[in-house]
Amino acid sequence: MKKASISCIYTPELIHQAQLEGKIAVVIDILRATSCMVAGLGAGVPAIRPFLEVATCRSFRDQGYLLAGERNGEKLEGFDLGNSPLEYESAAASGKKIAVTTTNGTRSLAAVAAADQILVGAFLNQSALIEYLANQSKDIVILCAGWKGTVNAEDTLFAGALVHGLQSTHTAQDDASLMAKLLYQSQKGSIAAFLSSTSHAKRLSGLNSDLDIELCGSQDKYSVVPILIEDEIVRKD
Amino acid sequence: MKKASISCIYTPELIHQAQLEGKIAVVIDILRATSCMVAGLGAGVPAIRPFLEVATCRSFRDQGYLLAGERNGEKLEGFDLGNSPLEYESAAASGKKIAVTTTNGTRSLAAVAAADQILVGAFLNQSALIEYLANQSKDIVILCAGWKGTVNAEDTLFAGALVHGLQSTHTAQDDASLMAKLLYQSQKGSIAAFLSSTSHAKRLSGLNSDLDIELCGSQDKYSVVPILIEDEIVRKD
Repeated sequence: MKKASISCIYTPELIHQAQLEGKIAVVIDILRATSCMVAGLGAGVPAIRPFLEVATCRSFRDQGYLLAGERNGEKLEGFDLGNSPLEYESAAASGKKIAVTTTNGTRSLAAVAAADQILVGAFLNQSALIEYLANQSKDIVILCAGWKGTVNAEDTLFAGALVHGLQSTHTAQDDASLMAKLLYQSQKGSIAAFLSSTSHAKRLSGLNSDLDIELCGSQDKYSVVPILIEDEIVRKD
Repeated sequence: MKKASISCIYTPELIHQAQLEGKIAVVIDILRATSCMVAGLGAGVPAIRPFLEVATCRSFRDQGYLLAGERNGEKLEGFDLGNSPLEYESAAASGKKIAVTTTNGTRSLAAVAAADQILVGAFLNQSALIEYLANQSKDIVILCAGWKGTVNAEDTLFAGALVHGLQSTHTAQDDASLMAKLLYQSQKGSIAAFLSSTSHAKRLSGLNSDLDIELCGSQDKYSVVPILIEDEIVRKD
């Protein structure tokens, strides 16, 4: 049987290079949008709804949502959560859905709208995601959210974890996948140290980030596979 | 003394992310435009003039230039050279300048026009280029020519060779440089094998490419530093 393919786009600015129709898209924003989503859904949050605009996000309070979001590392005024995956885990106890405004993460989800399925990945659900993808026999496009349009190391590292983990079922289709896989293979023994060394991690330092980064680098804490269905990210059954 | 910076752009489509003013730009197209240029200038070709358009390139025959260029791996009709660095080495005996039409390579040279100096790099002049750059104390932007706008492994590998070689004089400014350096450090013992494994190398296979790829992966055959001056690439004195 012909293997399915896997390809990788390093930043949303290059997403026009991908063919998305009929494929599964996996969006990655390790620090921190997709790590937060996996942590929240894994801990029991029923759904997470992403927005680009703060005002639209805020309007969902009236519908019983918790509000999450930050700009430049600071929690937005009047919001319930910032951008820490620890806060998302704690929020599960409320039983409420979360409305979140992010920049890189939301833009990336919108950029892969043409795909057949849109999934959310992070180290926190690495094995569950790989197991799900391996069983689909469908072509995959990985989109790294990056940082303000630029290439980012932690997202590429996790893209490489997927290419590596799917070697027996999916053929790497492009050099971007090949390089991501080599990066993961050379760093897989020291993911947390690698995350701490990347430029984005340095930008976030000081904002209670050590614990966050440790959590974002934890592999397989959860077995959820988040999927975007009608504007909300929920657990795939 | 504050170290100068080095940053890296993986494809010309992302060059708008770089600040070029006052900096040195290094253009990389290992397979094969910049390898050809280094081989030619290293072997004694006096100057190489790049063009996007075939017709403009062809018109330079009347001015005594040899013509070089290919499309889809085939030498252009009526041209003297294709895209093999071996042909560029042989051409040196004529003493003539070369007019060349390339796609990725020429576009990349144009994309960094705002830089203070525009240099051409390849494994063939790796050490000479690093030595020159180390002595300049100027910020560097590396531009990988890529393949039709996509990220490409062999150009990124050589970008990593520069970041690695300049560690003591230049601070890596972005995650793209950091990842390129890690790629080079993990592959530097097997550059030729790596080049053979990349997707572009596979596309070129069959066209007498084994010898070409071996040459493109040879480190330090030449000590030239090619620089773009008034539309022509010449040896930096």
